[in-house]
Amino acid sequence: MNILFVMYDQLRFDYLSCAGHPHLHTPNFDRVAARGVRFTKAYVQSPICGSSRMSFYTGRYVSSHGAQWNGYPLRVGEMTLGDHLRGLGMDCWLIGKTHMKADAEGMARLGLEPDSVIGARQAECGFDAWIRDDGLWGEGPDGFYDEKRSPYNEYLKQKGYPSENPWTDFANAGVDDGGEIASGWMFKNADKPANIREPDSETPWLTRETLRFLDQAKGNWCAHVSYIKPHWPYIVPAPYHDMFGPNHVPAARRHEIEREDAHPVLAAYHRSKIGEAFQRDAVRAKVIPAYMGLIKQCDDQLGVLLDHLEGTGRMDGTMIVLTSDHGDYLGDHWLGEKDFFHEESVKIPLIIYDPRAAADATRGTTCDALVESIDLAATFVEAAGGTVPDHIIEGRSLLPWLRGETPGWRRYAISEYDYSPRVQCVELGLEPRDARLFMVFDGRYKMIHAEGGFRPMLFDLATDPDEFHDLGKGDAHRAEIDRLYGCLTEWGLRLSQRVTRSEDDIKAMRGRSLRRGILPFLVDGSEVPEALTERYRGPAPKRYVEP
Amino acid sequence: MNILFVMYDQLRFDYLSCAGHPHLHTPNFDRVAARGVRFTKAYVQSPICGSSRMSFYTGRYVSSHGAQWNGYPLRVGEMTLGDHLRGLGMDCWLIGKTHMKADAEGMARLGLEPDSVIGARQAECGFDAWIRDDGLWGEGPDGFYDEKRSPYNEYLKQKGYPSENPWTDFANAGVDDGGEIASGWMFKNADKPANIREPDSETPWLTRETLRFLDQAKGNWCAHVSYIKPHWPYIVPAPYHDMFGPNHVPAARRHEIEREDAHPVLAAYHRSKIGEAFQRDAVRAKVIPAYMGLIKQCDDQLGVLLDHLEGTGRMDGTMIVLTSDHGDYLGDHWLGEKDFFHEESVKIPLIIYDPRAAADATRGTTCDALVESIDLAATFVEAAGGTVPDHIIEGRSLLPWLRGETPGWRRYAISEYDYSPRVQCVELGLEPRDARLFMVFDGRYKMIHAEGGFRPMLFDLATDPDEFHDLGKGDAHRAEIDRLYGCLTEWGLRLSQRVTRSEDDIKAMRGRSLRRGILPFLVDGSEVPEALTERYRGPAPKRYVEP
Repeated sequence: MNILFVMYDQLRFDYLSCAGHPHLHTPNFDRVAARGVRFTKAYVQSPICGSSRMSFYTGRYVSSHGAQWNGYPLRVGEMTLGDHLRGLGMDCWLIGKTHMKADAEGMARLGLEPDSVIGARQAECGFDAWIRDDGLWGEGPDGFYDEKRSPYNEYLKQKGYPSENPWTDFANAGVDDGGEIASGWMFKNADKPANIREPDSETPWLTRETLRFLDQAKGNWCAHVSYIKPHWPYIVPAPYHDMFGPNHVPAARRHEIEREDAHPVLAAYHRSKIGEAFQRDAVRAKVIPAYMGLIKQCDDQLGVLLDHLEGTGRMDGTMIVLTSDHGDYLGDHWLGEKDFFHEESVKIPLIIYDPRAAADATRGTTCDALVESIDLAATFVEAAGGTVPDHIIEGRSLLPWLRGETPGWRRYAISEYDYSPRVQCVELGLEPRDARLFMVFDGRYKMIHAEGGFRPMLFDLATDPDEFHDLGKGDAHRAEIDRLYGCLTEWGLRLSQRVTRSEDDIKAMRGRSLRRGILPFLVDGSEVPEALTERYRGPAPKRYVEP
Repeated sequence: MNILFVMYDQLRFDYLSCAGHPHLHTPNFDRVAARGVRFTKAYVQSPICGSSRMSFYTGRYVSSHGAQWNGYPLRVGEMTLGDHLRGLGMDCWLIGKTHMKADAEGMARLGLEPDSVIGARQAECGFDAWIRDDGLWGEGPDGFYDEKRSPYNEYLKQKGYPSENPWTDFANAGVDDGGEIASGWMFKNADKPANIREPDSETPWLTRETLRFLDQAKGNWCAHVSYIKPHWPYIVPAPYHDMFGPNHVPAARRHEIEREDAHPVLAAYHRSKIGEAFQRDAVRAKVIPAYMGLIKQCDDQLGVLLDHLEGTGRMDGTMIVLTSDHGDYLGDHWLGEKDFFHEESVKIPLIIYDPRAAADATRGTTCDALVESIDLAATFVEAAGGTVPDHIIEGRSLLPWLRGETPGWRRYAISEYDYSPRVQCVELGLEPRDARLFMVFDGRYKMIHAEGGFRPMLFDLATDPDEFHDLGKGDAHRAEIDRLYGCLTEWGLRLSQRVTRSEDDIKAMRGRSLRRGILPFLVDGSEVPEALTERYRGPAPKRYVEP
């Protein structure tokens, strides 16, 4: 069995034609959806790249793995997909982005060398790296944001792009009318073509790396193909740069009432620079067509991948998963980026094609169960023939849904957001540890709890699918809020760190100490079979006398 | 600075004369109390040896470190006192018991050899082992309970005690009138003297090991002197075996109402073999005098230790901490052993002597603050000159109390008990993960939440200091219960796993990405100082043309 676990970065759930986008035609996403199941209520464990990904890769909630924001290292020893799948005889490869920061201090404490096999896997989130490129080669007065080596930048240099950082100067920049750099970092340039041959841009490059992997791959493997796009900078090469225009940009899904007496944390995000930028229709008119172009390019490259799998006869043995690490507000709710819990941010596309006959019954269908991103780790373990170690992996296998079954299922989804390094934490006068939000969504009501002494937010998606009306303002919905706090209490008390003992281990250890002489309840020994106390009976050794 | 961190096992808080015991005179405990502070409301994080100790040694709640019961390995990489103190230039030694089980699978996964320095510390809960002996050398048809080597047993063999397991045959057994072994495992034998020279019994032996350590110790160190006694088997050598008799045994603190409509989990413990044994007054009359004798011996040996410290001029430079890992029901509440949350089980003795002048103001006083066992790790870090890493250690330093200050303090104490390997879990038809109890105690009300769909228990210690009346039965105390559930919710959402990033780290990383070119909010670049976008401006490189 092989698994192609394809992740796009910042791809909104509704920017696919199979999910109903009115203008963006994505025939290759749709092609996988037609052969598999599209999950319509799939939520990430955190609407931010790094934390969300650590949840995908560990199968654990953010509060369980602890990597609460980008650049917060994943603690050494935290088990990942790679640990689980390799134990089942399945290799686990990375092709692209993880946004994982290694726990260098923890590794040093345990004496793990980053260039050993074990150390390299610890440093790469459990993957063997076919290629690692996080795709954010920003540069400023203090140097590169990402201090690693960029294979993609090396590729561009090798191809002759004359720059030390062609990612910045070519792949993510155009040229303006005056011959100046038109940086993709500035929204005003989003309608320009990136100054790069389209096949050299990031998405086709990573696709070719994937084909190169596929052409040599043997045995059982899971390959995490992880594209940086359609993540910002919002700029795309020709011909994708002008496939879409302002007439394809839907009106922003926002309402004045959202800004009236807004929850203090949300209000702080409304005031953010990115929020203010996306509140301008001119920005949306420039950026969204570029975003759509980036997705269209992703779709075309997905077609290349699918054609290759078909051409090499691999479709029958390869599970294909298409998903994203979070969405993109694009101006909806007066916000840009992600970082909050409206559907545009926290809901993700999730399409799974399982080639096996057991999944025939569900091909081309959708599934409305409340799915969490941590479910994929469980799904992959089961697909690899394993039993989900549910004392470690907190997600649940989706395979029953793919077989058309209706398993007992979770009653609510949880997502978390830690904004401790953000300016909003400072503005609100919070200590880092109090800058944490928790979403509880039961399929209808979505409550957001904020640490730091704030009231909760509440949305009723049945009566208010656009999530404009915050019912947490008054006291009218106290019963729903109490009920959802009950869910949060239950979740907070979940068993998440007993990672060294499984349920089966525990059952097997019962009675063991009795048979090893630990009998702290004996009055005279008659309480247990004689065999258990034999060691404690018989003639006494002589009373000890000093030699 | 040196720290002598002395732990007794299963020592009840009220079995000391300084804590008001009417018959048991413990002048050496009292001697430390007279020079330090006795904490009257100190609670363990779990009323079971292994989990409680892992909380002492990590400074973290049981649900945070995950070693939820005896023999559940502490996950590799979990930071301990040793990690924290060595980082501050203080050695950290073990002399005696930890009840720690190494995470052998985790160590193998990370390639850690148990005989390397790093591996040995991982396997010994972060300590350097001067001597490790867990003091439970029970033996049955399947062999030894503890498969390690027992330094104490080796000592006895060397002294000429003729047995392969003199711990069992001599130190923890007497001889009956017929010349048969009178095993200390059987309560009927608790009044017999153990068949051993008193100086060879466990408590004096460990004291001598401690003196041997002290005589060579240099520099800054923390030594965890960890006695197995007065833990069962309840048998003690002469002359301690008959210092106390049935007339020194207080009436059991129990009431028939406790068994009427008892909470199902508590009722299962009432029915346990150990509970049933201790419900018999004859058992209490035999066992409690032996228990008192064991404590009296501990007190005498503490005197030896204190005399040695005084004689060698070390009292001025050594902080002394006396505590226990949990109590012992001894028949109170119809129970034996520990495993539940009445004061007799979950409250511990805690006496701290700080030699420094700053603590002069509080010598000989008591402190009624709600203290948790995890506070000691924080206390030791601060005593060693460090700042408590409060993203890892969840306890709080007690030094302010020792200085006579009144710091802002916790509103409630938490304790947890996981009975998943117990027969009670089976009897109640629970899966292991549901066999978990949580205590929330605010200094007056003590609520016990049980996973698995049970009602909570509630005691009001102001009106019912004996904890006989479970107010969780009806609905009359709904408000208190709701309030305490609010505390449990808050606690459940605590930040416990972000162990790779401190509050200060986070504050320091703010703004870093801006200066490294990550500017996802620019419309035209005018939003930030020019220096931040310099890299993204200037003449464009030529449009790329294929070579």
